[in-house]
Amino acid sequence: MHVQVIHGPNLNFTGIREKDIYGIAGLEDINRRITARAKELGIIVDIAQSNSEGEIIDIIHSCYKRVDGIIINAGAYTHYSYAIRDAIKSVDIPCVEVHLSNIYSREEFRHKSVLSPVCVGQIAGFGAYSYLLALEYFSLKWSDQNGKD
Amino acid sequence: MHVQVIHGPNLNFTGIREKDIYGIAGLEDINRRITARAKELGIIVDIAQSNSEGEIIDIIHSCYKRVDGIIINAGAYTHYSYAIRDAIKSVDIPCVEVHLSNIYSREEFRHKSVLSPVCVGQIAGFGAYSYLLALEYFSLKWSDQNGKD
Amino acid sequence: MHVQVIHGPNLNFTGIREKDIYGIAGLEDINRRITARAKELGIIVDIAQSNSEGEIIDIIHSCYKRVDGIIINAGAYTHYSYAIRDAIKSVDIPCVEVHLSNIYSREEFRHKSVLSPVCVGQIAGFGAYSYLLALEYFSLKWSDQNGKD
Amino acid sequence: MHVQVIHGPNLNFTGIREKDIYGIAGLEDINRRITARAKELGIIVDIAQSNSEGEIIDIIHSCYKRVDGIIINAGAYTHYSYAIRDAIKSVDIPCVEVHLSNIYSREEFRHKSVLSPVCVGQIAGFGAYSYLLALEYFSLKWSDQNGKD
Amino acid sequence: MHVQVIHGPNLNFTGIREKDIYGIAGLEDINRRITARAKELGIIVDIAQSNSEGEIIDIIHSCYKRVDGIIINAGAYTHYSYAIRDAIKSVDIPCVEVHLSNIYSREEFRHKSVLSPVCVGQIAGFGAYSYLLALEYFSLKWSDQNGKD
Amino acid sequence: MHVQVIHGPNLNFTGIREKDIYGIAGLEDINRRITARAKELGIIVDIAQSNSEGEIIDIIHSCYKRVDGIIINAGAYTHYSYAIRDAIKSVDIPCVEVHLSNIYSREEFRHKSVLSPVCVGQIAGFGAYSYLLALEYFSLKWSDQNGKD
Amino acid sequence: MHVQVIHGPNLNFTGIREKDIYGIAGLEDINRRITARAKELGIIVDIAQSNSEGEIIDIIHSCYKRVDGIIINAGAYTHYSYAIRDAIKSVDIPCVEVHLSNIYSREEFRHKSVLSPVCVGQIAGFGAYSYLLALEYFSLKWSDQNGKD
Amino acid sequence: MHVQVIHGPNLNFTGIREKDIYGIAGLEDINRRITARAKELGIIVDIAQSNSEGEIIDIIHSCYKRVDGIIINAGAYTHYSYAIRDAIKSVDIPCVEVHLSNIYSREEFRHKSVLSPVCVGQIAGFGAYSYLLALEYFSLKWSDQNGKD
Amino acid sequence: MHVQVIHGPNLNFTGIREKDIYGIAGLEDINRRITARAKELGIIVDIAQSNSEGEIIDIIHSCYKRVDGIIINAGAYTHYSYAIRDAIKSVDIPCVEVHLSNIYSREEFRHKSVLSPVCVGQIAGFGAYSYLLALEYFSLKWSDQNGKD
Amino acid sequence: MHVQVIHGPNLNFTGIREKDIYGIAGLEDINRRITARAKELGIIVDIAQSNSEGEIIDIIHSCYKRVDGIIINAGAYTHYSYAIRDAIKSVDIPCVEVHLSNIYSREEFRHKSVLSPVCVGQIAGFGAYSYLLALEYFSLKWSDQNGKD
Amino acid sequence: MHVQVIHGPNLNFTGIREKDIYGIAGLEDINRRITARAKELGIIVDIAQSNSEGEIIDIIHSCYKRVDGIIINAGAYTHYSYAIRDAIKSVDIPCVEVHLSNIYSREEFRHKSVLSPVCVGQIAGFGAYSYLLALEYFSLKWSDQNGKD
Amino acid sequence: MHVQVIHGPNLNFTGIREKDIYGIAGLEDINRRITARAKELGIIVDIAQSNSEGEIIDIIHSCYKRVDGIIINAGAYTHYSYAIRDAIKSVDIPCVEVHLSNIYSREEFRHKSVLSPVCVGQIAGFGAYSYLLALEYFSLKWSDQNGKD
Repeated sequence: MHVQVIHGPNLNFTGIREKDIYGIAGLEDINRRITARAKELGIIVDIAQSNSEGEIIDIIHSCYKRVDGIIINAGAYTHYSYAIRDAIKSVDIPCVEVHLSNIYSREEFRHKSVLSPVCVGQIAGFGAYSYLLALEYFSLKWSDQNGKD
Repeated sequence: MHVQVIHGPNLNFTGIREKDIYGIAGLEDINRRITARAKELGIIVDIAQSNSEGEIIDIIHSCYKRVDGIIINAGAYTHYSYAIRDAIKSVDIPCVEVHLSNIYSREEFRHKSVLSPVCVGQIAGFGAYSYLLALEYFSLKWSDQNGKD
Repeated sequence: MHVQVIHGPNLNFTGIREKDIYGIAGLEDINRRITARAKELGIIVDIAQSNSEGEIIDIIHSCYKRVDGIIINAGAYTHYSYAIRDAIKSVDIPCVEVHLSNIYSREEFRHKSVLSPVCVGQIAGFGAYSYLLALEYFSLKWSDQNGKD
Repeated sequence: MHVQVIHGPNLNFTGIREKDIYGIAGLEDINRRITARAKELGIIVDIAQSNSEGEIIDIIHSCYKRVDGIIINAGAYTHYSYAIRDAIKSVDIPCVEVHLSNIYSREEFRHKSVLSPVCVGQIAGFGAYSYLLALEYFSLKWSDQNGKD
Repeated sequence: MHVQVIHGPNLNFTGIREKDIYGIAGLEDINRRITARAKELGIIVDIAQSNSEGEIIDIIHSCYKRVDGIIINAGAYTHYSYAIRDAIKSVDIPCVEVHLSNIYSREEFRHKSVLSPVCVGQIAGFGAYSYLLALEYFSLKWSDQNGKD
Repeated sequence: MHVQVIHGPNLNFTGIREKDIYGIAGLEDINRRITARAKELGIIVDIAQSNSEGEIIDIIHSCYKRVDGIIINAGAYTHYSYAIRDAIKSVDIPCVEVHLSNIYSREEFRHKSVLSPVCVGQIAGFGAYSYLLALEYFSLKWSDQNGKD
Repeated sequence: MHVQVIHGPNLNFTGIREKDIYGIAGLEDINRRITARAKELGIIVDIAQSNSEGEIIDIIHSCYKRVDGIIINAGAYTHYSYAIRDAIKSVDIPCVEVHLSNIYSREEFRHKSVLSPVCVGQIAGFGAYSYLLALEYFSLKWSDQNGKD
Repeated sequence: MHVQVIHGPNLNFTGIREKDIYGIAGLEDINRRITARAKELGIIVDIAQSNSEGEIIDIIHSCYKRVDGIIINAGAYTHYSYAIRDAIKSVDIPCVEVHLSNIYSREEFRHKSVLSPVCVGQIAGFGAYSYLLALEYFSLKWSDQNGKD
Repeated sequence: MHVQVIHGPNLNFTGIREKDIYGIAGLEDINRRITARAKELGIIVDIAQSNSEGEIIDIIHSCYKRVDGIIINAGAYTHYSYAIRDAIKSVDIPCVEVHLSNIYSREEFRHKSVLSPVCVGQIAGFGAYSYLLALEYFSLKWSDQNGKD
Repeated sequence: MHVQVIHGPNLNFTGIREKDIYGIAGLEDINRRITARAKELGIIVDIAQSNSEGEIIDIIHSCYKRVDGIIINAGAYTHYSYAIRDAIKSVDIPCVEVHLSNIYSREEFRHKSVLSPVCVGQIAGFGAYSYLLALEYFSLKWSDQNGKD
Repeated sequence: MHVQVIHGPNLNFTGIREKDIYGIAGLEDINRRITARAKELGIIVDIAQSNSEGEIIDIIHSCYKRVDGIIINAGAYTHYSYAIRDAIKSVDIPCVEVHLSNIYSREEFRHKSVLSPVCVGQIAGFGAYSYLLALEYFSLKWSDQNGKD
Repeated sequence: MHVQVIHGPNLNFTGIREKDIYGIAGLEDINRRITARAKELGIIVDIAQSNSEGEIIDIIHSCYKRVDGIIINAGAYTHYSYAIRDAIKSVDIPCVEVHLSNIYSREEFRHKSVLSPVCVGQIAGFGAYSYLLALEYFSLKWSDQNGKD
């Protein structure tokens, strides 16, 4: 099983900025935890970060016929990038939307995700755990599906 | 560690209604999976269901000084019950909001949760797994906190 | 044939309050007329009244596999109870929404019914007759269906 | 007793178009049922159809001092014809608004009726029965009024 | 003279929660002050608290022909319970709406009271004094009315 | 000098309906006063009434190169007929919008005129005088223009 | 008969500013025409101008039991001064709202008059003639009333 | 192959009015070009113009089982005639919506077409060419369909 | 202890206008009652009235280091004067907002107070008593504070 | 004559995704048809595709003094890229906006194009034909212009 | 060169109120810095402060033919005084809008300036420097214009 | 002292496009003036331009620990790029938002800046001077801070 993790704009600055909101873990810490947990769950994981909307679309397109699931934290693009939304829809791979912080207890413009309607589900507010729970979901799902065989 | 799970209105009809949206698991199935997973994670779990807004508030109040975490699926009350929101805030216990379905790909009125701003985070769209991921979160969080001691 | 009639909040005060809007018939008068007309049409009718949103949901759930049609006047819950809406949808029984007064010629907030999208249809503005017309509908429908057999 | 039934725009195409929404009865079928039921109830009924807003206003004006009640299905004019609304108000005859389909479970723009505030009440969602229930209302009302004499 | 005081949802948690907003007085303190002041003013006072919308409606109905005035703090129901609003209107007893905190300097959703239009007036922001001022109003009003006789 | 007066939908019922809003003058009275005053001012006046949006457009088109000014009371079409607005603009003749009643103290939907932006000005609220003041305007304007020659 | 004319803010700059909108007549020209026409109609006229909302309210109050009619061009206060609106209502004297330009073909914020609902009517878009037509209205009205005696 | 072209309100004034928006071609010029191009493409074309909403609906109904495609420029009715929309939907014939001018660079109210959702597509902003491109579409479509046989 | 009472625009006309809304007490009556009650409570009271927004700001500024509390009824300025709001905030003295009538059961524009967020609280709907209850509040507050010393 | 065709984000996935909306033609098919038709019409055509907003702006800038017309399908950027809008305006070359699908019968957010106001016109809903019709427009326009010389 | 500086409502309280927002400079400090900097730049400067909307309009009118530029900080009037906006437009003198604080990071109602559309530009958020930068602008502009001679 | 100047999308076309809005200075002219003025003020200045949202974020990130201030003209991204907003916030360096034109007197969508809340302040409408005034601000600020040492 193969999962692509995508970090969107400004996530390369996690841990440096706004410590009261996101906690102290930097992006490398987060990636280390993702890699470790994926290994435990028997999931191959690719991780990418980009500040560019176009590049994120390219990464999503590259998932086509290559991975079994996508975990995306699109940062601020979450709130207006209908182009990323279309990209997720176009590749037709189960995608889980994650957020470090609880976007619903922050500024008004962060309350709306244009990506949610094309994702399987949303996990928000658990810091680095958000990514780990998304991995957990894929693991649970796939083992249940195999169990049915 | 002790967690209260609260199922809101109409969840007692899960599995009977709208199979295309929620999948086939009935509420007993869901509760069985919650109980099993909690046991594995060493979490004591209480489960309650009510169709009444007032009773749900009473259950939340009863959590005060009794449990360490709340997992709530408030059903349709999610979208307008400011009274439940106040109850969650009043007891000051970490609360995770869960939903069986992806509320953002359904009717417009389901896109807004009045509970989100007072919850730690939100997990939506993963069927019965949503509850399990919430348990996972509490387990990860508490083991990390203990690890720091 | 079996029909459940549900009167929502404050309908127990009909006839006492606001005579210029609802006319002079009290709830007992209305129930008497419903019972009489149902008898004429060969319909078994159960009648319930509650001021509690949760109880109304319970009553709707109790209809499952018990009655063939529901007639509901949800009072002010009509305008915001998405939980009652979900209950109606969950039992999947033809439901007719009725109102004593013409809700569209009263305050702005009464112009919107959140129940309408899950009901067969709406009858509003005819006082106690609204209930009788709903019974009439069920009678016409069922006799047509039988006539087709 | 004398009732004018008015069918608005595109109702002459009923039965031809959109079978899943309105069912299979064509306008002639509907009119036949109206006529038959009116006869049973001892009501003289005139029926008119027009696609023109101006003509519908003329028909309503022609009701003045001629009929005792109006049953109107104004089709799409329901949602924006303030001119028809003024016409209904100007003749001051009890008017019942009917709709074949449940306008509240269709497109957003159909959720608002500008005619409702000047009508006695609304009956929507019962197909051809909507007209019959309106006739029933007039019959019930008038027999009650006579009974009081 | 007889007044019913009604405390709505979560007010049983006053003094425990959110000390910076409401100050430190718990509900018993508030009730003690209400009782003491009522006694001084020669007013008989009944006090009730409920987290349930339906029960609050029942309490209001019970006031009919029993009390001369109502003082209500409907908590979060203030902002959406049109059913409580209808209950207040149905019993036709002078009702004063009170709030511990200044609802206009808190979250946006608390700025609107659906109860205000059916109340005599509103007193908000004075902590436990809000209730005492409402008692004062009834006392002033009734002594003026008597003075006129 | 030549002026076309256009009465829109339902104005043929003026004097019959809603006496408290428009006063008691019927359309013939109004027309008689218009004709008399036009004669005094040396203005040739044509008067037309129609309930049909299409006919009103035809009348406006017929003004082209025939009259020097238009006085229009478009009734309810005032509030939504962008087609009449385009007609007024297309003939490029000074047009004065008049209303019997003060449209700004009536229902919300009457507060907006889609015709105003293409008219010289608006005169509303003076009953039959509204038309006479419009005639007065044309008379004042034209005599001033002649005085300048 | 006695009429008070009130010019609001910036009207003292008429003729100097924005010639394409208001035409070339300065405020003195306008006042001269008002005075001349009033004389012809046998109306005593007082004229005042102020840039201050408070002073305009004082002028309106001063009308009480002194004049028979008010003609007001409140300039930009038209669009937001609920205080001037209350003043007009408080003195209960027939008041005509006038505007030099067609406020409905200018910026969006000028489309709404908060004064209209408390005025007899509105005359807008006729330059200095707007005031003269308002005088005409009072003259017509009063001579009709006298004619009836 | 047979196409009905429908010109809506005020298009009979094209070429006379607002030259800066629509260019100089009058309706006859446009019709001549449509006829010439249709002939080249082997399409039989009927052309109608009406200022009446009701008549336009009648024309659309007349297309049923008579023509293979409709090209409609509904003028200002584009923006509010839900009745024309229903007519297009009822006959179930491919319909192309055209506009002479770019409706999106004009007044706000012209930005919304209520007809678009029931049309195959929209061609706007190309003057008389808009109609020719619509013909081109039908020609391309039909020759492709035949080519597939 | 020292309190400044401020009456805003048109309150000098209280008792003359709109008797059904405000009752019959004129401003002098109200002031007499305020003075009498203040005396009883041992409060020194200054009373001012102005129709001018600027003067009201000046009065508020004059309170700085001079009074211990402000009672303001800003009349219609309540609904839009952000300048008065800033003045209240700038002097940082406890301010109680009062209204004679229940502003929430009147016109829509009166439902919003821009002053509320910077006031301690609001008392509305009790006629002249509103001022007396505000005095009561200051008295209760100050005696409690002294009691604590 | 020289035309630049620009395909925006996700159009490289056309034919792969959402077959029910766009039909089966892939981007290469579309490009082949564009090239073939341009050749027939004597138009030199350049074709570019990019998922990046910045690159699309660069391509538009590169058109300056190089091409005579632009055909753009900006994909989801259509709905929010004011930067692409500014780019189109800055180069001042006739630009035609095209869409494969009818954007007005899809999700609400697709109903608004921020590019329309700076384009000559819009062609939407005709699949690959949309591009061909845009070429047709340029061909018709230029041959007419030459014909006039 | 001559510049008028206008300080609006509550600016006379700067330095006293809300130190965390505006910093510690009082109005005299600000004026001293303005005067000093103007002297350096060879600009004659007049400074005025008023809490009254009407007086501010009078000051602006007094600028006509007297000064070459206006610098205005209209305080809270910025957000609703269309009368001040009209005054600025009427005198047709370059006007720079300044604010001490960043109005876009404060309350929602401060985000909109009704003055901006009639000002040359806006400088906000730089405390007392905002005024100095406005002076700088006039100096740069005028020296450039002179340099061109 | 070190400042980064960032020009956003389409600013590389300044001077070529829309001369009536931005004046005639091209981007090189602007940069020359910025460089010259910075030199005079003793500020080291880096200048960058990009049409890509992602690249602008990268440039902002590159400022971290490298520069003391940022001056940004984000072009159209100003109005919707929450990703650039997050980037500015993440580096925590004083940032001044500048615009060549007065964005408040242009199209509606340009009235809102999503960047303003995270910038020190905004300077808009002064053409190339806007950048120079931003430099001036940094110079004034830093010399004041040094003066205090």
